Amino acid sequence: MAARRKKTATRKKAATRQKTASRKTTARKKTTARKKTAARKKAPARKRPAKGSGEKRVQATDAQTMKQIDTTAKRVHQTIRSSRRPDLALPVRALSNVSYDTRRGYLEIGRQRKVRTLSVNTVKNFAQTLRMMALSKELIGNNDFATKREAYYISKNWEDAKFDEQVESDTVMDDIEALFSVDSIAREQLRFYPEEHGGSVSGPLLVIDRDATGRVARIDCSNFGSGAYSVPTSVEELDFETSADFVLLVETGGMFQRLQSHRFWERANCILVEMGGVPTRAVRRFVRRLADEEGLPVYAFTDCDPYGVANIYRTLKVGSGSAAHINRFFCVPTARFLGVTPQDIVDYELPTHPLKDVDVKRAKDALKNDPFFQRHKEWRQALEQLVKMGVRAEQQALAKWGLNYVIEEYLPNKLKATKSFLP
Amino acid sequence: MAARRKKTATRKKAATRQKTASRKTTARKKTTARKKTAARKKAPARKRPAKGSGEKRVQATDAQTMKQIDTTAKRVHQTIRSSRRPDLALPVRALSNVSYDTRRGYLEIGRQRKVRTLSVNTVKNFAQTLRMMALSKELIGNNDFATKREAYYISKNWEDAKFDEQVESDTVMDDIEALFSVDSIAREQLRFYPEEHGGSVSGPLLVIDRDATGRVARIDCSNFGSGAYSVPTSVEELDFETSADFVLLVETGGMFQRLQSHRFWERANCILVEMGGVPTRAVRRFVRRLADEEGLPVYAFTDCDPYGVANIYRTLKVGSGSAAHINRFFCVPTARFLGVTPQDIVDYELPTHPLKDVDVKRAKDALKNDPFFQRHKEWRQALEQLVKMGVRAEQQALAKWGLNYVIEEYLPNKLKATKSFLP
Repeated sequence: MAARRKKTATRKKAATRQKTASRKTTARKKTTARKKTAARKKAPARKRPAKGSGEKRVQATDAQTMKQIDTTAKRVHQTIRSSRRPDLALPVRALSNVSYDTRRGYLEIGRQRKVRTLSVNTVKNFAQTLRMMALSKELIGNNDFATKREAYYISKNWEDAKFDEQVESDTVMDDIEALFSVDSIAREQLRFYPEEHGGSVSGPLLVIDRDATGRVARIDCSNFGSGAYSVPTSVEELDFETSADFVLLVETGGMFQRLQSHRFWERANCILVEMGGVPTRAVRRFVRRLADEEGLPVYAFTDCDPYGVANIYRTLKVGSGSAAHINRFFCVPTARFLGVTPQDIVDYELPTHPLKDVDVKRAKDALKNDPFFQRHKEWRQALEQLVKMGVRAEQQALAKWGLNYVIEEYLPNKLKATKSFLP
Repeated sequence: MAARRKKTATRKKAATRQKTASRKTTARKKTTARKKTAARKKAPARKRPAKGSGEKRVQATDAQTMKQIDTTAKRVHQTIRSSRRPDLALPVRALSNVSYDTRRGYLEIGRQRKVRTLSVNTVKNFAQTLRMMALSKELIGNNDFATKREAYYISKNWEDAKFDEQVESDTVMDDIEALFSVDSIAREQLRFYPEEHGGSVSGPLLVIDRDATGRVARIDCSNFGSGAYSVPTSVEELDFETSADFVLLVETGGMFQRLQSHRFWERANCILVEMGGVPTRAVRRFVRRLADEEGLPVYAFTDCDPYGVANIYRTLKVGSGSAAHINRFFCVPTARFLGVTPQDIVDYELPTHPLKDVDVKRAKDALKNDPFFQRHKEWRQALEQLVKMGVRAEQQALAKWGLNYVIEEYLPNKLKATKSFLP
């Protein structure tokens, strides 16, 4: 346990160094074994940041991002110098340009491009796009960041190129993000951070982070009392140490709190992560890195309703249709669905609520239009079963059998048969 | 700085003990001085939990809560035994039963009671109220808790007394909470916890917490890298150590992140707290305890719009009208408003958005009906100025002058004149 390891370290440093080392070896062996198993099932390995110092990794990515910005800008500049009209070829961000290959594991953006050529009509937008890229370069240079809203306000000093509404600057930022995603650069690497973060974390996990001054913080997620660690907005620079066996993602704050305060993470040797509805980009990326770099299986525990399945779980696992250009970074293709399943409602005689019209519509839309459900027969059957039953159940409905039934019975039973989890 | 103190401690324990002690004395002197000043302005001291071991404090409160539940139940029981019809006198939870006395500092529930007498019509509700009280007693006995939703599901095994909808169990819980609030017992003490928590914290603050097994965690809020500490759902059992000069509450996640990642808390020696909109009960209580027990001034930094003023700040400072029975615990009467003020929009030439109809309605409602605004002339003038200007401004609008203008200029300027803050 990271916590225990730390405690001991303060007492007897020398003695512990050995111990820790041997424990680490065990942990690593375990991880390697798991990685091998996972690798067989997973898509061919994709380019991923090397495990190691978060600082070095970020420096390398920053250099790459700077280079890409420079290359793009130079191309525009040279085209202008040779008296031609410059253009930018931006990936089309729409459902019509999305595909799903189960081997790759996420909703993927296609090859369609919209070409924005400089003209009298596009000059303002073209200038804004270049200034936004310049802002990104400046932020990297200063080791700073800007939220979407801040970027909008900064533009107020761009004279003719200023944005009148934030929706305009958001669109330009999305375009740039899509443009650079082709080179595996995400918005966070361009130093545009989302406003929201959230996602509490608890369990045998040591997060190694640095603040803006470079000071290193070692955060022990098993030692927060009744509270928890909160995932920061950008997680790329984090490093991890863990001896956990898997990650358990929980939909509601209430359920997370129950599992956390009763130290379920200790009993099951897992890392608990609160999603609080559809998980934010930061939470998805955080878990993805744990899955990729630590080789941990990921299980999701949500309410049993079309929202929990088709929005929360689907977005977690394969990303969203409208932001397909970022799914390669921001989803967890290896995630599996622990429950609550429609069959659980029957097996555990759970109290239910009738499905609302909006629930039924969401389920039918998913069955008809969503490539994820089209590819997974088990999920189609489960959704159809739910619609036929005409009810939904919350994860906290297990409290019918006692507040801690979920800890004593439900989760241990489920975790005995992870292979039968929905894909 | 708590962080520095801790670091040193691991290195040279003996040497540091002295140092820490002397630093603490300085901190205490400062605190006492501040407390004296604060006391002059504040309401006559109200009963408050003694500073000291959170565990002991919670044990004392548990004993008191158990006793009150027993007393109430015994009275009902004895009335029945003497062949009379028992009743419960519940405080009326409505704006009509609310008053505001600036010396007490919060919206206070009045003396109106609705008497619920046992009869054929009320028997189910009466039984449910008693069972809910019994559940509370059981939770205290088991050192457990239940969320509102869990309490609803538990009732599914109460046979005829089961709730059909969660709104019914919520109402009964609110009634019980109001009943016990008369004896200074809040819902958290009855062990009914809210679902939501949230509120990130950063700065020179050591939080001392215990988990369900009693293990003590010392959480250093100055050492979270790019992340932050997240306030737990129930904060009564926490203890604090701090050398900060004040608490700065920030409305948006984006602004919090800027201040946190640039270590503004170090520069200004303050504790930063992210509200994320209207602060949750847990955040309000957390800050209230810092204000009461550590004697820290509290400043709020929100958007300049009727929502930021009349909802976020008003609720933080004096509580809400619809939950007046809990305001005595869940507000921060000593809070002051740093900005963004309507005058700041003029002085700092901030980019604005036009006020929407709903904004204007909210401002006019506040001016007409809200006892808080009726008592504070400065606030009436500020709101009237805003309505007259017809615009609103976000706190991030300061980015017009540069991303870190807020850190370099705006906040330092403001903090030079805390006495001119709006009340």
